[in-house]
Amino acid sequence: MATAAVAILKTSFAKAVQTGVPVSFFKVDDPAKVPGTPPGEIGTRSHFEKLIKKPSDISSRSPLQDFHGIITPSDLHFERHHNGVPAIDPATYKLVIHGMVERPVVFTLADLKRFPGVSRIAFLECSGNFRSGKEELSPQDICGLTSQSEWTGVRLSTLFREVGVRPGASWFLAEGGDAALMTRSIPVTKGWDDAIIAYAQNGEALRPEQGYPVRLFLPGWEGNTNVKWLRRLELGDSPWQTREETSKYTEGIRDGKIRQFSFDMDARSIITFPAFPATVERGWIEIKGLAWSGRGKVRKVEISTNGGKTWAIAELQEPVLDKAHVRFRYLWHWNGTETVISSRVTDDTGYTQPTMQQLLAARGPEMGGYHLNPVTGWLLKPDGRVLHKPESWR
Amino acid sequence: MATAAVAILKTSFAKAVQTGVPVSFFKVDDPAKVPGTPPGEIGTRSHFEKLIKKPSDISSRSPLQDFHGIITPSDLHFERHHNGVPAIDPATYKLVIHGMVERPVVFTLADLKRFPGVSRIAFLECSGNFRSGKEELSPQDICGLTSQSEWTGVRLSTLFREVGVRPGASWFLAEGGDAALMTRSIPVTKGWDDAIIAYAQNGEALRPEQGYPVRLFLPGWEGNTNVKWLRRLELGDSPWQTREETSKYTEGIRDGKIRQFSFDMDARSIITFPAFPATVERGWIEIKGLAWSGRGKVRKVEISTNGGKTWAIAELQEPVLDKAHVRFRYLWHWNGTETVISSRVTDDTGYTQPTMQQLLAARGPEMGGYHLNPVTGWLLKPDGRVLHKPESWR
Repeated sequence: MATAAVAILKTSFAKAVQTGVPVSFFKVDDPAKVPGTPPGEIGTRSHFEKLIKKPSDISSRSPLQDFHGIITPSDLHFERHHNGVPAIDPATYKLVIHGMVERPVVFTLADLKRFPGVSRIAFLECSGNFRSGKEELSPQDICGLTSQSEWTGVRLSTLFREVGVRPGASWFLAEGGDAALMTRSIPVTKGWDDAIIAYAQNGEALRPEQGYPVRLFLPGWEGNTNVKWLRRLELGDSPWQTREETSKYTEGIRDGKIRQFSFDMDARSIITFPAFPATVERGWIEIKGLAWSGRGKVRKVEISTNGGKTWAIAELQEPVLDKAHVRFRYLWHWNGTETVISSRVTDDTGYTQPTMQQLLAARGPEMGGYHLNPVTGWLLKPDGRVLHKPESWR
Repeated sequence: MATAAVAILKTSFAKAVQTGVPVSFFKVDDPAKVPGTPPGEIGTRSHFEKLIKKPSDISSRSPLQDFHGIITPSDLHFERHHNGVPAIDPATYKLVIHGMVERPVVFTLADLKRFPGVSRIAFLECSGNFRSGKEELSPQDICGLTSQSEWTGVRLSTLFREVGVRPGASWFLAEGGDAALMTRSIPVTKGWDDAIIAYAQNGEALRPEQGYPVRLFLPGWEGNTNVKWLRRLELGDSPWQTREETSKYTEGIRDGKIRQFSFDMDARSIITFPAFPATVERGWIEIKGLAWSGRGKVRKVEISTNGGKTWAIAELQEPVLDKAHVRFRYLWHWNGTETVISSRVTDDTGYTQPTMQQLLAARGPEMGGYHLNPVTGWLLKPDGRVLHKPESWR
């Protein structure tokens, strides 16, 4: 910066301080030449970072291609609502547990927080998390209905003991306090296993879109069963056959039959870089992405850089957690010729992510739009464009 | 809700939709009776949650007593600046590495992101993270200058190989692009060991207050050495003796001597509940808090509920990560009589968090205000108040 400019700057700055004009109002060449913004009550995202969830009427999707690591920022966690986000006052919030129990109980939020707590980093994925059919789709478009947080709450098993679940109770109904009164029937075994009545996410209270003040969290199970704005649990001896488990959230199988209660999210992976809309240059490329399984831990992720002919093992970022997104990385030298790259995961049950052909062969042409986890391909063009490759699944 | 009220509500709502008035404008008894807010481009914190960092001129503090789990929300990460937050354009950002290297290199942000990456959940703590002297202090007041994120970037060792660090180079200077030109000398061994040139935090780009677009991250080392807005690394064969390692960030020891380059943060723990300003009732209380060590993993946390006479083992929330905040929990029945509760951590080097008497005995009365990690006590009063207990250290 020229001396004259510095002199002008100094004068301007002194004037700014006197008049209360923010220093940032004055353009400067070097941020190191002016005092910066002082500490604040709350931080902000840089205005250079444009991160949005691309909302539709009923959902919004995490921008997976923009993420690093495994934590999803809470304000970028995907959304899927059945009648919008209700405004619930935590001071008047109540959760009732009744039905086949010894002692029906109404819990306040303060009651729930007094019980011994548990925290767990785990993913949450919508069972309808699949889109395809054209080249210009990003990871967010294709499978942005998955996100990961550290969830904190009380184990449902603790509350089951508190209310005294009766021996014959085999299912419970979870009801949300949204305008859809979202309801799902859940096997009691999941409640005893690892279900959490969650009141916190990534260190702080749940965000409103994620069920504030309290949601059900069922590690590894399809998103809609993780009922948000949870207000009622009823214990019973059979499922309730609610709308969301009869007309919705079921899958066609062969011979005109329908599969209900397909809770577990199957293992899946996606390369998030390079991926549309990024462009790449020939040379060394670190292929990066996310892999997860609703049934346990990721055992391995394999990468193909030749359209599925051969596969090589990717590096997994520690810690590899149970029922959690894992970051994988694979260093690859691209010679600039057109090729298709893809990833596939194997979980610790031995299950390997299928191709779309394998999915179709197993479930039949009426399989519908839920629980689709096919291997996802990216076409690298010699000009550096990266396009989604629906063809690789047909 | 009475039928008449519902009718009025429906009319109001229809009108609201027609006129564009937000539905939330109309007070309703039951959020389940009106459509909620649709999905958005970006989430928000509930307006019922008031979380602030209590800024001073030079710092702001994480509200530890409000946190759950181990992740600090990025906008609540503590701040400690030496001349405010500079506004740096990522498109023009550059990092130069020079000095005792074979090939001085200027890296852009895009360059840094092309290298193989690494992610790690780890704490960051200011070496001046201590306040005491009165009863009405919260965990935020006492030690809110510690926070935890998942950090992502390129290993400094990778860049060291890229520039060809010369055999004789034993130190490097890290210089920030803030108006203080914050500079610290760091042993090259730390660069080869686990230093990260970080560009992301909790899944997204660094927040401006945390060094956007790039900071040095030195796992376990005192906060100020993790130079933010990093613009220059110079390799050399001795420390630079900058202001921040001579007049500041040094500690008095015995015989009028000064200790320099005390990088490692010693193991520490604090009970965050119950803690001021919370109040408690007699009965079962889950004592909760955070423990960490800059030298490795937390091996155990012990809890005393009788002023330090006896200690019992707390439960540690998995995963227990290296150089990371760990959440501990201890279920205790309080009979309502006045008592002091406290925690102490032992790390995997065998080091146990000292009392203030032990710190004074080891370092002498001129030890100053840095690297103070004493056992912190909370006085429970029969009326349910919880007060900080400075007396327990004297």
